[in-house]
Amino acid sequence: LKNINCSIITIGDELLIGQTIDTNSAWIAQQLNPIGIKVRRRVAVGDDKEDVLEALRQELVQSDIIILTGGLGPTNDDITKDILCTYFNTELVMDQKTLDYVTAYFEKRNRPMLAVNKNQALVPANCEPLFNAVGTAPGLLFEPDNKFIVALPGVPFEMQYLISKHIIHKLKDKYQTPSFMHRTLVTSGEGESFIANKLIDFEASLPENIKLAYLPKLGIVKLRLTGNDISDDLLNSYFNELKRRLKSITVIDKDMELEAAIAEILMAKNNTLALAESCTGGYIASLFTAIKGASNFFNGSAVTYANESKVNLLGVTTIPNMEETAVCESVAMEMAIATREKFKADYGLGIVGYLEQKDHQNEIWVAVADKNICKTKTFTVPYDRQKNTVLASNTALNFLRKFIANEL
Amino acid sequence: LKNINCSIITIGDELLIGQTIDTNSAWIAQQLNPIGIKVRRRVAVGDDKEDVLEALRQELVQSDIIILTGGLGPTNDDITKDILCTYFNTELVMDQKTLDYVTAYFEKRNRPMLAVNKNQALVPANCEPLFNAVGTAPGLLFEPDNKFIVALPGVPFEMQYLISKHIIHKLKDKYQTPSFMHRTLVTSGEGESFIANKLIDFEASLPENIKLAYLPKLGIVKLRLTGNDISDDLLNSYFNELKRRLKSITVIDKDMELEAAIAEILMAKNNTLALAESCTGGYIASLFTAIKGASNFFNGSAVTYANESKVNLLGVTTIPNMEETAVCESVAMEMAIATREKFKADYGLGIVGYLEQKDHQNEIWVAVADKNICKTKTFTVPYDRQKNTVLASNTALNFLRKFIANEL
Repeated sequence: LKNINCSIITIGDELLIGQTIDTNSAWIAQQLNPIGIKVRRRVAVGDDKEDVLEALRQELVQSDIIILTGGLGPTNDDITKDILCTYFNTELVMDQKTLDYVTAYFEKRNRPMLAVNKNQALVPANCEPLFNAVGTAPGLLFEPDNKFIVALPGVPFEMQYLISKHIIHKLKDKYQTPSFMHRTLVTSGEGESFIANKLIDFEASLPENIKLAYLPKLGIVKLRLTGNDISDDLLNSYFNELKRRLKSITVIDKDMELEAAIAEILMAKNNTLALAESCTGGYIASLFTAIKGASNFFNGSAVTYANESKVNLLGVTTIPNMEETAVCESVAMEMAIATREKFKADYGLGIVGYLEQKDHQNEIWVAVADKNICKTKTFTVPYDRQKNTVLASNTALNFLRKFIANEL
Repeated sequence: LKNINCSIITIGDELLIGQTIDTNSAWIAQQLNPIGIKVRRRVAVGDDKEDVLEALRQELVQSDIIILTGGLGPTNDDITKDILCTYFNTELVMDQKTLDYVTAYFEKRNRPMLAVNKNQALVPANCEPLFNAVGTAPGLLFEPDNKFIVALPGVPFEMQYLISKHIIHKLKDKYQTPSFMHRTLVTSGEGESFIANKLIDFEASLPENIKLAYLPKLGIVKLRLTGNDISDDLLNSYFNELKRRLKSITVIDKDMELEAAIAEILMAKNNTLALAESCTGGYIASLFTAIKGASNFFNGSAVTYANESKVNLLGVTTIPNMEETAVCESVAMEMAIATREKFKADYGLGIVGYLEQKDHQNEIWVAVADKNICKTKTFTVPYDRQKNTVLASNTALNFLRKFIANEL
C-alpha cells in the first residue's frame, strides 16, 4: 500500500515578511489526516511567478497532492491563475456559473460590480472550478496524470469552505489510503524532560508504527501517540499504559484545551462559574466565551484591572496600598468569593499578579471558591507579558479544574 | 549588489499534522527584514531524517542563510543534531560551557539533572554553540563557504532569544545588504476590492521597486507599500498619496492594531476607558490588557455574559426577556453608561450581540459614552463564532476610536 503524500504551497509576500501567520496549513492538515493523507511538506513562497513555479515543480516530484493557497483574490498582487496557465500551457476562460454567482452576490448587496470582480470568474481552461458559496473566487482543480492539484483562496473561511465542501470527498474517492490515528494526553505541572525521563522504557517498547511526540506549551505538555495503519485496540493499549504512568499530572485524555475540560465537568454537574481577573485582564473569560454553549456554565468575569475597580465592583477591602499593584493572597480570595456572589455562580476564581517585573520573578496569586471553602495557590511566571498571561491562565485553570473535580 | 536570501526550515511532525501553528517563521521574518535580508522560502518538514536532509540540500541551492527551528529538545523525537552531523560528516562533542550552564540551571531549581539534560550540551564538532540563557539547548551555528546555517530550538521564546542576542548582529557583520522598507496604512470600513478599485491608477503609477500589497483581516484591510533599495523620501511621497486617497477609511498610518491606536489617543489625552462586554466575552479587554502600560488608560471590563449579570453588576433595566439573549440598542447604551460610572472612567463601551444564529444574520449593538453623550451603532456579522468575535470587536473598536477622536 502506497503512502499518499501532500504538499501545501502557501503564496504571499505577507507570509514571508512576517505580517501574516499561516493558520491555514494546520487546519488543512487536520482535515487530511483522518482520511489517511499525510502532509509531507509545507512551503511558503512570495508573490513571485518563478518562485511559485519552482515550488510547484519541486513538490510534484514527491507529492501526489498539491494544495496551493493564496493569490486568487481580485487585486494585482494575486498571480496564481496566471502561474497555473503558464504551468499547464493554457489560457483563462470565463466560467459562466461563477460569473452568474458573482453578479448575484453584488446585486444582493446593492454594491457595484467592478471589472476586477468580473475577472474572478476567469479560470484556466483545463481546470474544474469549485464553487465558492462564501466568497467570489472559485477553487481551481487540476488532475493531470495521477496527481491532484488544487488552488484555493488564502482567506481562511473561504479555503475552509472549499476543502470541506469539495476537496475531502474528491480525495476520498480518488485515493484509498491507510489511516493515521492519534491519541493525545494533556498534562500540566511537569516539564517535558521530566516526563520524558519517566517514559524511557515506554518509548523503547513502542513498535515501529507507533510514534510518541511531546508538544510543550506554556504550563501544559501534550503527549501524542500516532499509529500508522494499526488497530484501534493496539494503539489504545499503549495509550492506556501512557495514562497509567502519567496519572498524577493528567488533565484529560483527549486533545482538548483546559477550559474545554473544565466546561465539560461544569456542564455535567450543572454548575456555573464566575471570574475576577486582574493581571489576566479578560483573557480567561475570552477562553470560556469562545466555547459554544458557554452561557450554560459561564456567568461572567469582573475584569478589575485597576485597584479602584476591585474596591468599587467587588468590595475588596484588603488592598495594602492603593497606589501599587495589589498582589497578595487575601485580595485573590476576596475577589474569588465576591465574584461568585455578584454573579450568583457556584464557583468563583480570582487572580492577581505581576506580569513584567524587572527581575522576572512575577508573583501570581490565584484563589478558587465554592459556597463552603476558598483555596489558594501562588507561583511565579518568568517570561514576557504575553507568555506570562497564558502561563498564569493555564496554571490557574488547572488549579480550578482540580478544585471542581475534587482533586485538591 | 546581490540579494541575500534566507530559507526557514521548521522541523516537527506537530507542524504537519496541524497540532501546532507556526508563529516562529513570521517572527523571524520580522527581524530579518529591517537588516535587508529577504525570506525567500519557508519549508516545514516532519521529524524524518531524510526529509530534513533533502530540505537542507534543496534550500542551500538558492539561499545564503538557512534557519532551522525545532528538534533540539531533550527527547527522542528531537533529531536535528544527528541530522547536522550526517550533513557535515562530523560527530557530537561535549560543550563544556553549555554543560556548566545546564548543571547550574538544574541546581538552582533544586531539580535532578537527568542524562537527557546532560545530552543537551552535546553539539556537532564543527559548529559554534550559541549560548541560550532562557533554556537548556544552545543554538548551533555553521558557516561553510559563504553560507550561514543555524539550528535553533522550536520553543518560541528560546528561538527569539537566540535570534535577538546572537544571530542578528552576526548576519549584519557577514552580509552588507540593501534594505527593504515598509509603510503600512490600516483601514476599516471597506472591502479589499472596493479599495483596489480606488487605487487602479495609483498602482499603475508605482515604480518597479515599490510594491503594493493588500492584507485583509476581519473588519480591517491593511495596505503595505514595500520599497526595495530606494530613498525614504520617495517611498514617503507614494505613501502620502495613498493616505490622501484613503483618508475617509484610515485608522492609522502605521502597522498597528486598532486597540493600540486607541491606547495612543487615550494616553495622549490622559483619559481612561471601561468596557461592558456581553457577546465578546472579555476578548476586547484582553486586547487592551495585552498592551504594556494598560493600567494608565484601561480601568477594566464587566464581562456580563448572562442577563442576570447585566442586572446585578450594571443595573441594566431594559432587558426585554430575561430568558433570551438581550440584544438591543437600549441594553448596549445602559451597559456603556453604567460601566463608565462603575469603573469611574472617561469613556464607556457596551456591546451585545448574537454570534451564531442559524441564518448567520447576527445582529450586534455597540454603544460608546462619555460624560455628555452616548452614541450607538448596529451591524451584522456573517461568520462563525470565533471570526464573529473578532469582526464585532474590531468594528466596535473602530467606532470607539472615531468617538474619542471626535470623528463621529
